Amino acid sequence: MSRGCHVITRRLLEQLPELAEMEVGLANFFVQHTSASLTINENASPDVPLDLADSLDRLAPEGTQQRYRHDDEGPDDMPAHVKSSLMGASLTLPIQHGRLALGTWQGIYLNEHRNYGGPRRLVITVQGQKRADGRKYSGWR
Amino acid sequence: MSRGCHVITRRLLEQLPELAEMEVGLANFFVQHTSASLTINENASPDVPLDLADSLDRLAPEGTQQRYRHDDEGPDDMPAHVKSSLMGASLTLPIQHGRLALGTWQGIYLNEHRNYGGPRRLVITVQGQKRADGRKYSGWR
Amino acid sequence: MSRGCHVITRRLLEQLPELAEMEVGLANFFVQHTSASLTINENASPDVPLDLADSLDRLAPEGTQQRYRHDDEGPDDMPAHVKSSLMGASLTLPIQHGRLALGTWQGIYLNEHRNYGGPRRLVITVQGQKRADGRKYSGWR
Repeated sequence: MSRGCHVITRRLLEQLPELAEMEVGLANFFVQHTSASLTINENASPDVPLDLADSLDRLAPEGTQQRYRHDDEGPDDMPAHVKSSLMGASLTLPIQHGRLALGTWQGIYLNEHRNYGGPRRLVITVQGQKRADGRKYSGWR
Repeated sequence: MSRGCHVITRRLLEQLPELAEMEVGLANFFVQHTSASLTINENASPDVPLDLADSLDRLAPEGTQQRYRHDDEGPDDMPAHVKSSLMGASLTLPIQHGRLALGTWQGIYLNEHRNYGGPRRLVITVQGQKRADGRKYSGWR
Repeated sequence: MSRGCHVITRRLLEQLPELAEMEVGLANFFVQHTSASLTINENASPDVPLDLADSLDRLAPEGTQQRYRHDDEGPDDMPAHVKSSLMGASLTLPIQHGRLALGTWQGIYLNEHRNYGGPRRLVITVQGQKRADGRKYSGWR
């Protein structure tokens, strides 16, 4: 995944058919890396992910050897760690009636903070109550 | 709700009488918007919400058209999205003996990052174990 | 605990022998203070906690009376509150096969944002499913 912020809601939910069986609960998404992160932001305008990435670059700018002690893997290394902590490695989101109870404009972002980050692994944990009648809700979102 | 940071602990808990039945568990609070956010901070000094809002204004300042691509809704639009991701859309808090296990000085903040944000919706999800004897704890906090 | 960022994974897990009984679930860690915080970051290089603390100092610098209204307890008081909200007071992490499903390089950080913070209290809540056979997984991580 290229450096920057990416809306992955649809891709995530396609891998979570189990949600359709849930009446109510919580879904936890956890990225197992310290230079990537998860956040919720706007899902409509393609400019928002770009602006968010730029804002993070301003908050944790790439520096010189003087500025960060930790630069073994290049100038994007330590800023990536800072951005990861600012955004967070996990999201815990409500489930209602078979889907994530996201607001109309909310999407799940996976943020890649390294220039060449490699594949990223997510752990997804769902807890809650299934529909009493054992049926599934239709529609994935 | 006016732009800025607001302590809403009491208002939230008044809507959660169910907590009094819980022995132990977790409560998840989720704001269904991308230009508002939730956080935990000091509940005593009225200056802390003001200073926190100012600090967020410095971290995600309003810019010109050049600085943010996304400015359809005005100069407060994209900074609001950035602040929302910095603070986060959700909180997952422990429940013990019928109430949130907050520290003495901790309160729940709802942050409104737009100048004119309109009403904001929260989804609250409670998971855990009820008191074995079926009784309620007294006192809401 | 001295001011700055500290990797406390091992210390935390030593106090959580219950994890070894869990098949799958979530563990919530919550710090009951508004001038300390929890985050996930790199567990290997001793430079990362130092650089993260420095970055937070740049994001929420100590100011003069003019800059922060809230300075009763000194110039490190309000910046500590800002850092606490930027990092967050809680973490909700997945459990799999008796241990936290952290990535190879991930550690749990407790961040002390005051110069002289005193002792800090964490509340840990574990939810999930125990091993069906009632046995424990071996190894704490």
